[in-house]
Amino acid sequence: MAPIVCPGFRLAGVSAGLKKEGKKDLGLIVADRPAAAAGVFTRNRVQAAPVRLTRERIEAGRCQAVIVNSKNANCCTGSQGMADAGAMAEAAARQLGISPDLVAVASTGVIGQPLPLVKIESAIPALAAALSEEAVQDLAQAIMTTDTVPKVAHRTVQIEDKSFTVVGVAKGAGMIRPDMATLLAFLWTDAEAQPGTLSSILRPAVDATFNRITIDGDTSTNDTVLLLAGGRSNLSADAPPVKAALQSAVNEVLAELARALVKDGEGATKLVEIRVRGAAGDADARQIADTVANSNLVKTAFFGEDANWGRVLAAAGRAGVVFDPERVDLFFDDVQMVKDGRGCGKQAEAEATKVLKRSEFAVTLDLHEGEGRAQVLTCDFSVDYVRINADYRS
Amino acid sequence: MAPIVCPGFRLAGVSAGLKKEGKKDLGLIVADRPAAAAGVFTRNRVQAAPVRLTRERIEAGRCQAVIVNSKNANCCTGSQGMADAGAMAEAAARQLGISPDLVAVASTGVIGQPLPLVKIESAIPALAAALSEEAVQDLAQAIMTTDTVPKVAHRTVQIEDKSFTVVGVAKGAGMIRPDMATLLAFLWTDAEAQPGTLSSILRPAVDATFNRITIDGDTSTNDTVLLLAGGRSNLSADAPPVKAALQSAVNEVLAELARALVKDGEGATKLVEIRVRGAAGDADARQIADTVANSNLVKTAFFGEDANWGRVLAAAGRAGVVFDPERVDLFFDDVQMVKDGRGCGKQAEAEATKVLKRSEFAVTLDLHEGEGRAQVLTCDFSVDYVRINADYRS
Repeated sequence: MAPIVCPGFRLAGVSAGLKKEGKKDLGLIVADRPAAAAGVFTRNRVQAAPVRLTRERIEAGRCQAVIVNSKNANCCTGSQGMADAGAMAEAAARQLGISPDLVAVASTGVIGQPLPLVKIESAIPALAAALSEEAVQDLAQAIMTTDTVPKVAHRTVQIEDKSFTVVGVAKGAGMIRPDMATLLAFLWTDAEAQPGTLSSILRPAVDATFNRITIDGDTSTNDTVLLLAGGRSNLSADAPPVKAALQSAVNEVLAELARALVKDGEGATKLVEIRVRGAAGDADARQIADTVANSNLVKTAFFGEDANWGRVLAAAGRAGVVFDPERVDLFFDDVQMVKDGRGCGKQAEAEATKVLKRSEFAVTLDLHEGEGRAQVLTCDFSVDYVRINADYRS
Repeated sequence: MAPIVCPGFRLAGVSAGLKKEGKKDLGLIVADRPAAAAGVFTRNRVQAAPVRLTRERIEAGRCQAVIVNSKNANCCTGSQGMADAGAMAEAAARQLGISPDLVAVASTGVIGQPLPLVKIESAIPALAAALSEEAVQDLAQAIMTTDTVPKVAHRTVQIEDKSFTVVGVAKGAGMIRPDMATLLAFLWTDAEAQPGTLSSILRPAVDATFNRITIDGDTSTNDTVLLLAGGRSNLSADAPPVKAALQSAVNEVLAELARALVKDGEGATKLVEIRVRGAAGDADARQIADTVANSNLVKTAFFGEDANWGRVLAAAGRAGVVFDPERVDLFFDDVQMVKDGRGCGKQAEAEATKVLKRSEFAVTLDLHEGEGRAQVLTCDFSVDYVRINADYRS
């Protein structure tokens, strides 16, 4: 596999000794000049120090470097936490010879413990020395916590004789692993864009991808998605065809990362798409899809490979949406389990049990109330999820 | 222990062969004359046939008998389900020689399978023959599904030279075990009350007790709480002191049953009270308490006996309530873990770890925003919860 390269960006991932056994835990993204930047951050009231610092800096629309550590979230750490986040950025800025205002910071890991700043600062020279256009896997590894595989996605778009590339890395996921202080995703592109344009591309893309996944329904204090546009391709998103191409490349990279995140959910053995159609409106459909996707009983039934459709209907029924239960149809992939609110019998159940043995399948709920539709990606809920989260800090 | 007797009520629990190994699965409560009746039912959009039938009958304010089966919820069973619920009531009415309109029906168990009506009808003569003033334990056993112990509570109140008794039985719980089609609770008293009075007593009592507990956040399709007042004590709730005494006895019986339900939550090893104080209002406090009490990450940390307070703060932060995270204090029983949003250090953590080894403890969150307060009972989230729910139907 040829290395993924995006002209104008260099990357690194090294060990600063935060994780055990010399695993990578400190990452860096550097643009060769200040890039246009956009960000999306957690809506949790409790926000980690690096989120507060980076949100402020990204508002100015320019960013040249992102430094990120795993293993410690630097959250609920008070004024010391803010000072540490600032110092981490400043140490990187000094090493790179750029202004600290151009450095974004992100952290992921346990909440409530002081950031091991000395270890991080000591590792920065080695981090800078490791910078390379091809080191995307090192970076992806450096941001992992309970992830079992690094997550990287990329798209290259040809427009006449030029092309641009969008690369993204991610770890954990949105509303999935709060204590890991969860979702981090960084994207960079050599397309050219104004910060406002970039933000108008990033927000709907996140809403259509990362905001449509769940592992356990808990929202992190550290969620951060950043998109940097360096411009080296000389393809500018001021031109509508380039903007459209960039939007679709960003959508695709985020969708691929989102899928990878759910597939690698803590303890997950199955990837399940919950599709709701025929709702009175899209908002109703989404509310039902979210409620089903987050139901522990639905998710434990998936783990048990039990076509327990009653749990799906019961979860839909408590979503706070008005619908007539006696008009509902339900499918596991293409096997119809419920027609007009009633089970389709033993034959259908036997077929559906085969579907549940697959590692990926869809559950489709048709309410027959209107045209509203939505889908959410979720995973099953296994014994290992509980084990991982009961033992996480020890 | 002397048997619990409430004059004017007889009870029974027998095996109709719905459960394996001859376990009791069919129960009956009979008053010696039509009793005043009040009910509270699930708010799930998907409602089982017996809920729909019983809700209608209870609206008339009179009830003389309640017949209930476990193992099958008679939910998502269409018009056949409604016919079966009606036939079950009618068979009981015929046996007892009373009007079917005076018979309430309840079912609990798997959703979506036809009610085994023939088995139930065949067992009704034996059920009636077993009726006795002292058979409350048999009844409590007959309504169990994954419950490991029967739940019975009672209070006797002396007023001058008279007294009345309130007895209650329950299984599963409110928003706890949807597939079991969960919470059933039946209370009866020999106090005398108009149906309207009874309802005004039952609703706030349920709101203060059963609506403040959770095991897994899923709401059942079969939740039913019934309160019958037979009047044999000659103490009438038309008199304010009797009404007050009845209210408090009903509150206490429901509170004791609610506590027993959470303690016996699927796979639960710990009973935890989440207390929120200092919120801007009671509604804010309740929203935060609910969110923390339902967080899988908080509950798996309890199971792991890990004083992972960051998860409690992260859950509070996503509750949709405005508060200043830097003013929050957090306690595990009387051990302060967080002051002004920051951890209290290793000593506090070591003390808190001892608290988490207890089988019952409280988590108190003080927001320092106002006078609002609320509490919710929850349990930990164990590997066994997943096992039980992955394998439930098989």
